[in-house]
Order: sequence, then C-alpha cells, then structure tokens
Amino acid sequence: MPLNWPAEPVSTRNIERDLDAVAEITAPESGPGITRLAMTAYERDAHELMARRLRALDLDVTTDAFGNTIGLLPGTVGDSGSRPKVGSGSHLDSVPNGGRFDGIIGVVGAVEAARVLAACPERPFDLVIAIWANEEGARFTQACNGSRAAAGTLTQDDLDRLRDVDDVSLREAMESCGLRPSELESARWDGDGWRGFVELHCEQGGVLESEGLTLGVVDRVSCSSRFRVDFVGVASHSGGTPMHMRRDARMAAAEWMVEGDRLVVQSGSELRVTFGQAVVAPNALTTVPGHASVWVDVRDIDDERMDETVSTLQELARQVGERRRCEVIVEQLARIEASDFDDGVIDAVSRAVESLDRPVRRLFSGASHDAQLIAGMLPTGMIFVPSAGGISHAPEEETTVEDVAVGTEALVRALWLLGTADARGSS
Amino acid sequence: MPLNWPAEPVSTRNIERDLDAVAEITAPESGPGITRLAMTAYERDAHELMARRLRALDLDVTTDAFGNTIGLLPGTVGDSGSRPKVGSGSHLDSVPNGGRFDGIIGVVGAVEAARVLAACPERPFDLVIAIWANEEGARFTQACNGSRAAAGTLTQDDLDRLRDVDDVSLREAMESCGLRPSELESARWDGDGWRGFVELHCEQGGVLESEGLTLGVVDRVSCSSRFRVDFVGVASHSGGTPMHMRRDARMAAAEWMVEGDRLVVQSGSELRVTFGQAVVAPNALTTVPGHASVWVDVRDIDDERMDETVSTLQELARQVGERRRCEVIVEQLARIEASDFDDGVIDAVSRAVESLDRPVRRLFSGASHDAQLIAGMLPTGMIFVPSAGGISHAPEEETTVEDVAVGTEALVRALWLLGTADARGSS
Repeated sequence: MPLNWPAEPVSTRNIERDLDAVAEITAPESGPGITRLAMTAYERDAHELMARRLRALDLDVTTDAFGNTIGLLPGTVGDSGSRPKVGSGSHLDSVPNGGRFDGIIGVVGAVEAARVLAACPERPFDLVIAIWANEEGARFTQACNGSRAAAGTLTQDDLDRLRDVDDVSLREAMESCGLRPSELESARWDGDGWRGFVELHCEQGGVLESEGLTLGVVDRVSCSSRFRVDFVGVASHSGGTPMHMRRDARMAAAEWMVEGDRLVVQSGSELRVTFGQAVVAPNALTTVPGHASVWVDVRDIDDERMDETVSTLQELARQVGERRRCEVIVEQLARIEASDFDDGVIDAVSRAVESLDRPVRRLFSGASHDAQLIAGMLPTGMIFVPSAGGISHAPEEETTVEDVAVGTEALVRALWLLGTADARGSS
Repeated sequence: MPLNWPAEPVSTRNIERDLDAVAEITAPESGPGITRLAMTAYERDAHELMARRLRALDLDVTTDAFGNTIGLLPGTVGDSGSRPKVGSGSHLDSVPNGGRFDGIIGVVGAVEAARVLAACPERPFDLVIAIWANEEGARFTQACNGSRAAAGTLTQDDLDRLRDVDDVSLREAMESCGLRPSELESARWDGDGWRGFVELHCEQGGVLESEGLTLGVVDRVSCSSRFRVDFVGVASHSGGTPMHMRRDARMAAAEWMVEGDRLVVQSGSELRVTFGQAVVAPNALTTVPGHASVWVDVRDIDDERMDETVSTLQELARQVGERRRCEVIVEQLARIEASDFDDGVIDAVSRAVESLDRPVRRLFSGASHDAQLIAGMLPTGMIFVPSAGGISHAPEEETTVEDVAVGTEALVRALWLLGTADARGSS
C-alpha cells in the first residue's frame, strides 16, 4: 500500500546513540543493570537529555508540573487552531536493577519519529512527543503516575498517599526534584482534536520471539492490583524457641506465598501474581523473624477475576496468619483496570505494519503502560517489539537496535496515517 | 548447708547500674533494641567499660589477640604457682536488634561475683573473669569465636573463611578494631589447674518461667549447624511473564522453607530449624526475583540427628530448585557439637542452688554458649535465669534484675565451692 509521504528512513544509528546515552544514566553503586528510579535526579537527567534532542529538532519543549516532558512540532499545512493532533512517547524511569529498553525505546523511537516527520515538508497535523515521568510502580507502588496526571486521574491526595519503601511521599520526591506538586492539575491534557496516540514498547513477554515476529499490534492492556500484607509475629531466639512456640513472621509469609502461588498456577488462567518485594525483620541468622511485609502485584486481562483473586489472596493471608499466630494487616496500594485500545488506532497501526510487509499479530499486554491511561482520554494504541527470552525488569532485558528501528518505522507510518486521514472516516 | 565463706551479699544496684551502662552502647539508627555486633567499635566499647570495672576491683586485666578481655584475681592463700583456678564470664556482643540481657548478665554477674569474692580475705584459688569477644554467630555465621580462640579451635583459615553479609572477613573486622589476628594462637588457654568455669546466662527459652523457677542447672548444650542455600533463577517482568515461564527464586526459597519447616515440625523432636536471614534480588514490586539466598540455623540435642536433618534439608533444596528451575548452591558455614557439662561442676552448681533454698532443675540449653567451647578444655557448667516469655534475640528480651541477682548469688557460691573443694574429690 503506498503511503503518500516523503519516506525519509529511520536511522538505526540515531536510535543506538540515544539508547546508549540514556543507559549511561544510572544510580552509582546500585548493583547490576539500570537503576533510574522515578522522581530522582537520574530520571530528571534522562528527561533533560531527551529534551535536548527534541529542541535540536526545533520542537517547542516544556516540562509540566508533574515532570512530564512535552515536545510540540506544529503542522505546516492548515490552520494552527484546527489542525488534528497525533502523538507518541513513553517513559525513562526504571525499576531497581532493571534493563536498558523498557520505556526508553518508546521515547527514543518517538524522538526519531519526530525527526523523520519534521523532515516532511507538508504536515497537516501537530505532532506531540510525551516523555512521561514516573511510569514504573516499583518506587511508589502505583504505576503510570505521569500519564495519570495528564489524564486527570492523579489527585493531590495520591501525592501524599503514595510512598516509597523509605516512607518518602510522591509529593516530597517531586519537591526534591524541583517539580511543582501543588500545580498538579495544570498538567492535565485536553483530549480535543486528537487523532491518536501510539506508544512503542518492548513486549516484556515471549510471544513475538517465540513466533519469530518483529512487530505486535497491541489491542488490550491487562489490569493490575497491588497490595501489601504485614505479618506480625514475635522475634525470638532460634535456639531457645521450640518450633511449637514460634510466631515466625517469615514462615507465615512463605506459607502464604506458596499457597497463593499454587491457587494462581492451578487456575491455568492469564492471572499473574508476583510476590516481588518483601522486608523481614529482624533479618538475622539466629533470630526467629517477628515481622514480614510482602508487596504483591496481581495482573490479569479480566478486571473482575483480578478483584476476586485479590480478595482470595487477602483472605488466605488471614487464614495463614491465624494458623501461624501472626497478626495480619492488609493495605491496598493501587489498582488499574484493563483497557481496550481504540479500533481506529489499532487499524492505523495494523496498516503501518502491513506497509512494511510484516504480518499483523494482535496481542495483549501483560504489563501496564502509560498508553493505558491515555486511552481514557484519547484514541490510543501500542506497537510491541520483541524482548529476548521474554525478560524485562532485569539487567538481561534486551531488544535489538534493528527491532527498535523496525518498530520506529511502523510508529512513523502509523502516526502519518492517523494525521493525514480524513477526520471523519477511520482513514 | 553452711558455706564456709564470708557472705558479702550480691548488690542488685551494681547489677542494674552495669546492665544500664552496657545497654547504652548500641549502633545509632539501627532500629529497635540493641545492635552491638561482634568486632565493631560498639562491642569494643562495651569491653572497655567492663574492663574498667574489673580494674577498679584490682584485677589484672588484659586483652588477648582476639579481643577477649581477661581479668585475674589471684588467691590470697597458698602458693601462686599451684593455686587452683576457677572462672566465669560471658559475652557483650548482640545480634542485630537484639536485647539487653543475652550474654550481658553473664558478664555483669561475673564482675559482681569478682567484687564479692575479692572481699573474702582468704581465697585459696585464683579467679579468672573472661569477657568473650564475638559470641553471636549473627555476623560471621559461626558462633563463640572468642571462646574457640581460647580453646584453640579457631584457626587462621577461619579468620578468612568467616565473612559477614557485606563480605567483610573476620580477620578484616578484627583489624579494623585494632586487634591482632596474626597472633591468634597466643589467645589459647592452658587447661591445667582448673577446677571449673561457670557461665551465668538467661535461658532464652520458656522452661523456667513456665515452671515458676528462678534458677536452672544446665547439664547439656545443643549442637548447631549453619548453612546457606542460594536459589538462582531469572529476574523478569511481573506483568509480562506468565506463571509457567517463571524461574522465581523467592518462590523456590519459600517452597523450600515451608516444606523444610513441615518436616521438622512433624518430627516432633527437639529439632529447631530457623530460616533467620534471607536476601532476595531484585527486591522490587514489579519484578519476578532472580536470586534468593537463605541462611539456615539447625539446632538439636543429638549431633547425628542434626547432621541427618541438614542433609535432608539440603537435598530438599535441590529437589525444589529442580521443580522451580532454579540452580541451587549450598554452602556449609559452621557446625558445633552438643556438649555435656562436667559432673563435678554440675554438682557444685546444684549445691549452690540448694544453699539458696531453691529447687535443683536440670535442663539443656537450646542456644549455643561460650561455655560449650570451654567445656572441651576445662570442667565447665552453666546457670540459667528466666527469660520473660521465653523471648531472646529480640528487643523484647527481658530478665528481671532480681533474677540476675539470684543467679549471681548462685554463681558466687558455685565458684567458692569449686575453688575451696579438695582438688581430688568432687567437693
């Protein structure tokens, strides 16, 4: 299918340069992989780096109150007040000891797309590049806070409620980065005039790799729910305390995790439950631990089943706590509903994929993404490229530069199709 | 039974003053309770404090190459080359977030015993007060290193092999405290001429409290074995990784702990197995953990059954690792055999208890103690006083000052009986 635009090719070299430059920004002495946590100087440095790239392409770049970096490339055809808008972007923060690609390729790809599109003399649409702040929930338990701020679903209360493992609130962390929590509401977007927002991302699962594919057309993003369970027992001497007298908080947590995991695996469903974080105290060889906190991440493609699973796991924690004579405290931390992407955007992404002579493979995302929040406000979609071994949130995370380039090529074409389509038709 | 010595009473006030003074020495910002780890400035400060007390009583005080503080009160009757020796002492280091009593009361009690005995004009024995360094295995995994040095069972190899969780070796920690690891062998004692060594300690279990008793006569100390198991899986994204594709190291560790704990509980024996310390990485809400290290403490009163249990647990780890597709690495860290105390010392302690009109309750110790190592070299025994709720190695650890005073009274009498008995009889 001919796409009526000057086909400046995507530069693999630019992509490689930017991936390398971002990867150099990581907290020192933080262990293997990348540690560029949300609302730290490292995340801000990465934003500044990519903002410079956008400015070099003559985009108008601003930082909103939450720390999202927004670049605008106005169209060259039509009236500036009535031109349709298309956009792309992702995030630059990482989990602790994460990889070089999660989020980054969606920013680097969007910036490269801006370069290619800026070279097109006749653009009947405005292009918006969004670099979302604080996508990862690893630090403040709730994910996608920057895109929530744009979607108007992050509240002043959330800024105080969401806290990291050191009890620093999101508000305090924002202030330490020089951001403006009190002006949060000013970060909200207006959805008028939007044709579509497309986020490029690595799959973080193994479907594309196992099927030998380079591109995935994402049609749905999983829901997720996060909570913490505290088991409160009694610390005591490992030699002096007979087994039957123990109130061992670590054993209560372990028993709960094993029974919960078994329920989930036996369901054979798309449910994914992870006991990713835990803090046990005392944590000493010769002491029966008296306190265990476990953070749980529940994902599904079905909101209702997810909520039932969360209830079941929390009830199970209470049963195990009773059996092990530990008090159980449950705190719900975050919840995000599953999202279907927009049919028109899915169609544009599919046509872009076809134009590259690639098969259209539709799939859902097990991970949450900023696009999921943006989908509540604008027509939205996503493009996936493969993750080696399906691994992500780990130092071994890997997507080849060539695959990122193919994904970026599809992204440019999808944005062009959306921006140039008749506003009334589905293009 | 009349004890033929000038009965200067034990001072409850002295005991309280010294317990309070030692409790003030704890690492700042280390959380609840006492954190005075082995081979730190805090342990050394506590030694210096109690050494000052001994010097004030005119004892000759030295610090050996390992850091044990040794005080000598020569007898006043008989030839200095042929006087029999009796001794007492315990340790001043703590586990992380431990209590105020474990070890401390045995030092404070011994120092008070020295004061009482120093006031006796006719002493036909030399009194040795030993404040052992590095009794707790919490830091360097192997317990009782100071008394091992005295017993000649700590080697130069051990100083390099034993390492803390930050990979600091015992040798390096000793050097940082200004001690003399290269002269370790000079700390070895000569067992000749000893009548008995008696250690006063809190029970760290609930037997005395549950029977309403103040004094216990310890006749045996449990054996213990310590090892670490590493589960090596693959870190990956909590949303992107289906349950059946995971190689979750935390879940492998949890499953192993639950199955191991079940075996131990079902045995209904005196076995005590504690999964006291664990480090999991990454430890992040949205990452399936790829690595888990678990430190295990196994205690028993039967060496053979303990060794069988250790083998069974290690084999179980390999089975769970295979099932969960995690590599399993096992490292043996420390082992100590059960010890029977000396009949003559048990008899002297029993007579001392009877002289206070208290019932003689013999019991075994579930915890390891310096006395266990000294028993390989000299006639040795122990006196227990109650631990409230059986709790130890925790901030809630509690023994009343009154109970420590009664224990010290029994200690003074036992030392007197041993020191004044006919060398050939059992007194």
